[in-house]
Amino acid sequence: MEKFFDPKSVVVVGASNSPFNLGATICNMLKDYLKYPGAVYAVNSKGEKVNDYPGYSSIRDLPETPDLAVIIVAAKHVPGIIRDCAVKGIKRVIIESAGFSEGGSDGKAMQREIDDVARANDIRIMGPNCLGTLDTRKKFCCFYGVNPSLVEMGRIFEAPGNISYIIQSGGIVVLVIESFFYDLVGVNKVVSIGNKCDVDEADLIEYFQKDETEVIGMYLESVADGRKLMEAAKKSRKPIMIYKVGRTQEGVMAAMSHTAGMASNDKIFESACKQAGIIRLKSIDELHSMPKMLTEMPPLKGKRIAMFTNSGAFGSISADLLVEADLHVVRLKSQTQEKLKKAGQVFNIKNPVDIGPAPPQTYLDIYEILLSADEVDGLLPLLSVWQTFVIDTLLELMKMCKHYEKPAAIYTPNAMAKSIAIRTKHRIPIFETAEQAVRALSVSHYYYDSLRKRKFIPADSSAKKEKLSHTG
Amino acid sequence: MEKFFDPKSVVVVGASNSPFNLGATICNMLKDYLKYPGAVYAVNSKGEKVNDYPGYSSIRDLPETPDLAVIIVAAKHVPGIIRDCAVKGIKRVIIESAGFSEGGSDGKAMQREIDDVARANDIRIMGPNCLGTLDTRKKFCCFYGVNPSLVEMGRIFEAPGNISYIIQSGGIVVLVIESFFYDLVGVNKVVSIGNKCDVDEADLIEYFQKDETEVIGMYLESVADGRKLMEAAKKSRKPIMIYKVGRTQEGVMAAMSHTAGMASNDKIFESACKQAGIIRLKSIDELHSMPKMLTEMPPLKGKRIAMFTNSGAFGSISADLLVEADLHVVRLKSQTQEKLKKAGQVFNIKNPVDIGPAPPQTYLDIYEILLSADEVDGLLPLLSVWQTFVIDTLLELMKMCKHYEKPAAIYTPNAMAKSIAIRTKHRIPIFETAEQAVRALSVSHYYYDSLRKRKFIPADSSAKKEKLSHTG
Repeated sequence: MEKFFDPKSVVVVGASNSPFNLGATICNMLKDYLKYPGAVYAVNSKGEKVNDYPGYSSIRDLPETPDLAVIIVAAKHVPGIIRDCAVKGIKRVIIESAGFSEGGSDGKAMQREIDDVARANDIRIMGPNCLGTLDTRKKFCCFYGVNPSLVEMGRIFEAPGNISYIIQSGGIVVLVIESFFYDLVGVNKVVSIGNKCDVDEADLIEYFQKDETEVIGMYLESVADGRKLMEAAKKSRKPIMIYKVGRTQEGVMAAMSHTAGMASNDKIFESACKQAGIIRLKSIDELHSMPKMLTEMPPLKGKRIAMFTNSGAFGSISADLLVEADLHVVRLKSQTQEKLKKAGQVFNIKNPVDIGPAPPQTYLDIYEILLSADEVDGLLPLLSVWQTFVIDTLLELMKMCKHYEKPAAIYTPNAMAKSIAIRTKHRIPIFETAEQAVRALSVSHYYYDSLRKRKFIPADSSAKKEKLSHTG
Repeated sequence: MEKFFDPKSVVVVGASNSPFNLGATICNMLKDYLKYPGAVYAVNSKGEKVNDYPGYSSIRDLPETPDLAVIIVAAKHVPGIIRDCAVKGIKRVIIESAGFSEGGSDGKAMQREIDDVARANDIRIMGPNCLGTLDTRKKFCCFYGVNPSLVEMGRIFEAPGNISYIIQSGGIVVLVIESFFYDLVGVNKVVSIGNKCDVDEADLIEYFQKDETEVIGMYLESVADGRKLMEAAKKSRKPIMIYKVGRTQEGVMAAMSHTAGMASNDKIFESACKQAGIIRLKSIDELHSMPKMLTEMPPLKGKRIAMFTNSGAFGSISADLLVEADLHVVRLKSQTQEKLKKAGQVFNIKNPVDIGPAPPQTYLDIYEILLSADEVDGLLPLLSVWQTFVIDTLLELMKMCKHYEKPAAIYTPNAMAKSIAIRTKHRIPIFETAEQAVRALSVSHYYYDSLRKRKFIPADSSAKKEKLSHTG
């Protein structure tokens, strides 16, 4: 699988100098933007060079056997090209062209032809009807048509991260990539798998166990082999988040016209996800808003949450949200309340802790008091950044969270544009709404619980602490 | 009530030249920013001028009886000031100070004293613990502490609109006002009612029946008189949207420490809302994201929705969302599908209609075909603005919607920053996510249905049309 993301040599079949040629956009990306160090070849009918990459009229004429072939030509030419790949000994092919299983009976026949040749020659195929792969560390990307956003995309490659995405639709790849501009998402790899006639999400989950990936985000329109997916997920030591289309019959029908998927009964899928510890996302936006909770914060081991606000209304709002998310608004012990009283400037020493105008030290004291309290499993700071020192205290809070091994889901109400800027600049995992922050706590606890159920961590690791608190 | 929003003369009690004085921020706003034409007086212990507004040491010394008194002093001084108001004959008072019912037994005693004096002297009181009123048309605002955002706030006053907000918490006022910078929200009035010891949401609903208000948005932490609220709502010919805190016991507790509210059982509230046609909002953000559907688009009279996308995945995603929102993914009639086929460039002539690269006229043709189809009640365009002409077609779509009296909930996936800029510049009601767009359709239909149930419109107005379609 590795060489799908890091080929030492690649041929782009269909890259030419015609106007609007999609293959050429891949060559331009590799050459001009990524300065990809591997060998790149173009194959087109004239055998012409593309952006100085040598051109050939057939794969058979290439001077070497490339690690990877990327095909972006009209569907009817693809079976012939796959046969050429077989002759040349190419073992990895990404078919980006559309018009196969999703396009009616002719397409389906071509698909079968491709499958037969591939199987007979041990060729692994990604796609068709996809964008292929992007690897931030290896600086490889074979997505077509992304040129206009190159400069902005750049940020992805400048700061590689630990989230890997498996996405079944090109449109959603674009949406997720755009979120990187303003959300705290460090990316490792992105792969768009389209109709997934061969390589599927389960193969990739397995592959992502061995690389820098910390969280796997997925968008699926269909599940080809449910058992295989769930087996891979169950064994995964890295959290898997899935947004799945086809929860309703109408969604299934719509997805079939789009990526030829056949979505199975959603209730069965839902219960399988629970067994396998898969986090089911509730909206596309959660693909980028949720992972930071798992990459930047310790897990939420219990359900007892303390809120801390400098803007009263948000405490009330979030109390409702916590309960609706099946989390607990913790009743603070009297000794904790005493400590809060001593911290000063506290309007309300009960949960939600509500403070008035106060100096930075008060914020720090309150973080410390709440995180160190036995009865508290996690923190929900709802802090308007009226004064910039609040940012500094949030940076300290992140350290304290690591120390106490308890997470904080930070929401900074008001001045959202400012909050988003702070998030990116200081790399603070800030959520954009109270709903998102509460949801993040919920996701974190769900995942921690699944690790326990799958026996990746001892069942009693936090039980003792919980018991203690109940006597308090 | 009118003079709470448009006083010919106002006294700000507590405005002085001390550093960080909150009353002074009100004077500065009225003088420097709004250039408020009415008379403004300051009352403070030294009787000093504030920003050139004449100052007095007591209300009793004012040269006239102002239409409105705005009080922002420590709570303990407020009862005395109310007595001064009574002596002077002032009939409207906004108490912005905190520290009454929400602050323990001393506060409650003061509150009772105020209530007694007010009742005996026919004084109407707004607050305490509030920000008061803002009127975009009269250019009046007595919110304290908003100076730093003045310039940006300006946009509200530059383009008055038709949404009025009743908000029980200052923090949420700020959040909503900030949304005006990037969302399509034309504001008429904003009123922050705090502990609402006298003037409450029902009084304001009644008042907003007679002014330019088209939609009423509300944030409530408590309902003082449920019957009064529901009576006012039932009679309202303008849609009322409410986000209410205290849906859970924990939310009730938190709200009590904040604005002294006593939230009633949520299930009772929910069913009362349904009877009264009140739209219950699911998040704070809906306070600004939902009204545009009702101000900019005709109502959704039936449940049958056609989707139209140039970015396949979003059709599948939205099909699920529509069904989950109890709306219908309409099965297009064969004659409609024939027309779509003739329009050209259509990948999928079934719902969701999916098109490839196409010229503007194709977009316009498809809008027309779908909106004019008997079987379609509303449109869900899911259109990436890959080319700028899409914006022009959306402007045409808005006209067509008015013509056919059917709404479109527009979502422009990808390039969200661009979409938000387009929304503001061209005044196109664009939603930020597919979830929001579907929710807007749902809200629109819920409201239309409530008008029918409350017999504001004939029950059979669209029944005939629905019947026809079921035979098609």
